[in-house]
Parts: sequence; C-alpha cells; structure tokens
Amino acid sequence: MPTLCRPAVSVPEFVITMEQTLEFAERMHAGKPQLGLALRLIRNTGVRKRHLVQPIEKALHHPGFEERNRIYEAEAKKRCPEVIDRALANAGVTATDIDLIIYVSCTGFMMPSLTAWLINEMGFRSDTRQLPIAQLGCAAGGAAINRAHDFCTAYPGSNVLIVSCELCSLCYQPSDDNIGALLSDGLFGDAVAAAVVRGEGGTGIALERNASYLIPHTEDWISYAVRSSGFHFQLDRRVPGTMEPMAPVLRELATRHGWDAANLDFYVIHAGGPRILDDLAKFLAVDRTMFRHSWATLTEHGNIASAVVLDAVRRLFEEGSMTPGATGVIAGFGPGITAEMVVGTWTVDPLLPVGRIPISASVPGPAELAPVAGAVAV
Amino acid sequence: MPTLCRPAVSVPEFVITMEQTLEFAERMHAGKPQLGLALRLIRNTGVRKRHLVQPIEKALHHPGFEERNRIYEAEAKKRCPEVIDRALANAGVTATDIDLIIYVSCTGFMMPSLTAWLINEMGFRSDTRQLPIAQLGCAAGGAAINRAHDFCTAYPGSNVLIVSCELCSLCYQPSDDNIGALLSDGLFGDAVAAAVVRGEGGTGIALERNASYLIPHTEDWISYAVRSSGFHFQLDRRVPGTMEPMAPVLRELATRHGWDAANLDFYVIHAGGPRILDDLAKFLAVDRTMFRHSWATLTEHGNIASAVVLDAVRRLFEEGSMTPGATGVIAGFGPGITAEMVVGTWTVDPLLPVGRIPISASVPGPAELAPVAGAVAV
Repeated sequence: MPTLCRPAVSVPEFVITMEQTLEFAERMHAGKPQLGLALRLIRNTGVRKRHLVQPIEKALHHPGFEERNRIYEAEAKKRCPEVIDRALANAGVTATDIDLIIYVSCTGFMMPSLTAWLINEMGFRSDTRQLPIAQLGCAAGGAAINRAHDFCTAYPGSNVLIVSCELCSLCYQPSDDNIGALLSDGLFGDAVAAAVVRGEGGTGIALERNASYLIPHTEDWISYAVRSSGFHFQLDRRVPGTMEPMAPVLRELATRHGWDAANLDFYVIHAGGPRILDDLAKFLAVDRTMFRHSWATLTEHGNIASAVVLDAVRRLFEEGSMTPGATGVIAGFGPGITAEMVVGTWTVDPLLPVGRIPISASVPGPAELAPVAGAVAV
Repeated sequence: MPTLCRPAVSVPEFVITMEQTLEFAERMHAGKPQLGLALRLIRNTGVRKRHLVQPIEKALHHPGFEERNRIYEAEAKKRCPEVIDRALANAGVTATDIDLIIYVSCTGFMMPSLTAWLINEMGFRSDTRQLPIAQLGCAAGGAAINRAHDFCTAYPGSNVLIVSCELCSLCYQPSDDNIGALLSDGLFGDAVAAAVVRGEGGTGIALERNASYLIPHTEDWISYAVRSSGFHFQLDRRVPGTMEPMAPVLRELATRHGWDAANLDFYVIHAGGPRILDDLAKFLAVDRTMFRHSWATLTEHGNIASAVVLDAVRRLFEEGSMTPGATGVIAGFGPGITAEMVVGTWTVDPLLPVGRIPISASVPGPAELAPVAGAVAV
C-alpha cells in the first residue's frame, strides 16, 4: 500500500507578525477607502505570524517579474535540498530509490522546472520521472499526494518524492487593492515542504482511495491574472463559502470507502483561511479541534499554499497520537475550484517506526516568533 | 493494456511558408550582422510551412505579456473543444467516460489551467482528475502519454484524455537575436492536438513500457528566461548534438522489453529539428524513412512542441500500414534535456477498428500551402 511518510518542512528566517502586518497595512493604505477593510481582513485571518524569504521591506518592493523569478529560482535552490534530504531520511530511502519527483509550486515559474536541477545536484537517477505542476495552486499539495498514490499503485515497488516550494511573498503585488489582494496580503506565507510516498513499507498514512472534484462553474473564483508584473492573485468573495458544496463530496468519498466522514481519527485539511476550516468542520459535523493541525499551520505559518497539507501531516506525526489502523482524510483545495482528497489509514512499519518522535522536535514555541538567524527546520 | 487511440489535430488558418519566413527575416535583420546566420538557420529547418493563430503581421507584433496571455486563453478556448470532440469520437468514448485530463502547453500560462474550463464547458464529470503540465516543453507530449499509461495501469478500466495546445507564435520575441531565437523564429508552429488513452479496448498503440531520461547537467540547454515580456526561448548550440547520448537510452529501453531498437515497425520521434531526426536515425541504425511521420510534421507544421508526437501518431494512423503486433516507440524530447519514451505494439479492437481510415482524409497536399479560411482539421 502506498504510504505517505513523514514530511519535512522549512520556513524561512524572516518573520512578520500579525501586528507588523497591520502596521504595514496602515501605512500602505493610509487615507484610502480600503484601509478599514484591509485591517479587518488581516485580523480575521487568524494568522499570528508568517515566514518570508526576504526581509519585509524588501518583500514589499516589487523589483519586476524577471527579478522576482530570479529570486524564486535562487531561493528554491538554496532551500529545497535540505528539506528533501530530511524527507528522504524520514522515509528511510536515498535519492537513488526515487522513481518520480513531483514538484509543485505556483509562486514562481521555471522551464525546465527545478526537477532537472534537483536530479543533477542531489544524486537522483537520470531515469527519475519528472512531474512539475504549476497550475493547481493550493490544491497541488493534495494533487501531488494523489498522483504519487496513483504512480505507486501502477508500480508497487516504486517511491515518489513530493516537493512543494511556495514562496508566496514573491507574488505580492503592491498596486493591487481589490478584496482578494487585501486578504492575500495578510494570509499567505512562504515555506518549503517535502515528503516521500513509499510504494512498499514506511510509517505514515497508507493511501487507500483518492478523488478529485471541481465545483461546477467556479473556474474564475480563484485565479491568476498573468501580467508583465507577474502573477496577480484574484479571489472571489464566494470562495469562503465553498465548503458547503464540498462537504458532501468528502462525505461521499468516505462512504464509498465504508467510512463515516464525521468519525475519522485524523483530518488534514487545506488551511485556506479560517472560514474554510470552520465551515468544513461544521458541515462535516466534526469537532473543530479535529482540524487542529491545519489551524496550527494557519496560525504559525499563514496559508502556505500547496505546502499546507504536508505541514499539517508533519504536525500529525509530531503529535504522536496515531495508532495503527487510525482512519483519516487529506484534502487540498485550490483554483478550479478543485479539491484533491484521499482517505487512508495510519500504518507503522516495524523497521521504520518514525511515526513517533521526541517531543523536543515538536512545533515551534512562542520564542520563535522573533526573527531567527536561519530558516526554521520544522 | 492502455492503448493510445487515434489523435485529432488542428492547425490554425494563418499560414506562413518558408519563403515568407525568409522574406520577413530579411526585413527584420536588414543590415545587421546576424542576417546571414538567420537565413541559413531558417533554410536548414526544412520547415516548408507553418500555421499560426494570427496573421503574420499581427504575430510579429508583441502586444505585451498580458495581452499575449489573453490571446492564448481565447484561442485555446476557441480551438480545443473541436479537437477534443474528434479525439473522443476516434476512441469511441464520450466526455463522461474520461477519468483524467492531462493538459500540456508551454506557450501560455493560466491558473487554473484550461482543464477547469473544459470540464465545465464540455460535459466532463466533476470528479475528472486534472493534470496540467506547463514546464516540460516539447517533452510534455511524451510525458502526457506516459502519465496516461501509468494512470491506466493503476486503474485498468479508466480513460485519459490528453490535450496539447501549443501556440508557439505567442512566444515570439521580436527583440531577441541570439542564435536560439533566430532558429526558433523559423522553426516553431502552432497546433492543437488531443488523443485518448483507453485503459481497455481501443485501436492504436498498446503502451507497454515507458521511461524517462535526463541527460546529466544540461538543464540550461533549453530553457525559458521569464521576463516582463513573457517567455524567452533559450537554446544552447549543443542541443542538436544530444541524440548521440540519447540513442543508447532508447536502445536500452527496447532491449529491456526484449526488442531491438534498430528493428521496430514504427518510430514516432519528436521533430525538434532536422538534425535531431537525422542523428537519431543514424545512431539507432534505422533507415531515415522510418521517421517519415516526424519529417512530415516538421515539414508541414514546423516544430509544434508537445503536439509533435501526437501529430506524428495521427499520420501513422492515416497511413494505414500497421498490422496487429507491429512494434514501435514514441519519444518526446525537451528541456532538461529530458526524454519521455514508451514502447508499444499496434493493436486493433474489432469493435473500434479506427486504425485504418480512407486515404481521402490523409495528410494535406500542396494546395493547402495557401491561406485557408478556417483552421485545418487534420
């Protein structure tokens, strides 16, 4: 059974707190009609801090699309290898064991994608398959897990490396002041995450049944406007309300698997924003605390796009509360509006029992709210 | 066995001949040192004509990256549905039979990708999986076939729709005059192609074993520079020589399958340029005429990026010379430098014997070198 092993996550060293975000917004929108709305949107995100690849003053400055992409490439090359190394170690594999690399990122564009560089620099085999996905946005984390699941189903002995590199701060557009832009200015954060799906063996979530769903006629509700200044995030006011039609889809997936979506042992849900998490819990009739890992990601890192689900799975591992046979779901949401979902069971490999780790390596405490010298490996 | 069914292809209504390309180059580079090189490169492509989504005067004008992407989206929406309808009909399936849409295109960027719009507009199921790939360039046609193969291997009863929408003329950069740009100005053409991979049944190429290969340390040999003016194609002088290291890789794939790469019944090779085709035939010790479908695509449509392999497979169908059990290979090449390859066998479904079609629907003759009123369904 393909098993999603313990993810590795790294958040960059430059930290911005909600208070700082509010201060910057007061300055940016001073005297403008949208000021009140901007402050309210930022407060409502529930994001206490975010991590950025650049100091905030630099992040607020738009140096042009070309320079942004140059920074994206340099930062991705700087930050991905260490995270990948940890993800490989977590899964008990080495680079040469990997048959497919799925690289997901919607916050910078490279052709070839980073997969070619990773293969050359990190000792992956020359016959490693490459699957770069740039156009599924936040849903790409779930999509990566699901396509890895499919690949290991087709080739049972194979291993897939998932890399999510989301440097959302490089898509900040100072001139945008629509509601979607105002919200995203307070919501998105930067992170790099990686995880291995092992075709055989491994401790983690045995992936059992996946599904995708597109809410009809919502393709312009979350989108990029592609301009000479880069990607401009566009968000429709109706997006926060999409969990009402999405909950039955998740319920049906669980039912087809013989499970009750209201009674699973773990829930890894894309932390698109607080209303997404609140609503989905409500419509699934699940206690709010069952989404605690998604809430923790949102609070401590912001919405880190396709990396959210991997960061939440990491927290599930670190909590150490799962026992073999525990049932759960992973669900990523993104443009389309698309959901990528999978149900699975906690499994422990006696040879690789990395499901439980010492509490000292657990989630960062409040001390780390202050700026740190280096990126935070979490 | 997953079977690649007969592709549908459409080339746009605006035609530019090699003579016209040479005239335009004489005008564009008049009095500049690169003129002689540009003319030589264009003549050496062997491309007799290409099809463009806009009249040449408009195609030569760069209206900005935003407008280019707007045109891309409008043209993709205008041209893809008809091609998809034919591809579905060729495979004997309807939209609701499709479980996964793989949309490949490196010549425009949308988020969400066209998959969401297609699902909404063309009656695909809401649970259709979406796999958009933008970063594998010309290799994406082979990658799409291979990922479809993998998916149908994982889920044997499923069907995958592949769509390749390559509007290369929308990446023309008037200000670029390096050798790669000069070459690409005379080489690339526009086309839309689609095909279904059926998990069960179907006439066409039964996909048996696929492989990917990255030539080490060549990741900057074919690349996009991403700028405010869009994607700038960059080509290293060493690319035409890459078939020497690639031929042994193809040979090894055939050998692992118990076949001799020098003695297959059909070859569908990415027509990156004349030297690619000439060299690969030489290094595989295969007669040049065995690559005739790739040569025909190159001559009549130019290099249509990820659509090349689908157009060459279409020609193989239309020739009508394959009999059950015929062996062959499909190979796409692109940035990385990456090859996506698959070996397979010609198979005929007695219920869907669309492998042979009347000769009247064969490749367009010289009459179609003149501009046509509508897009050419081929």
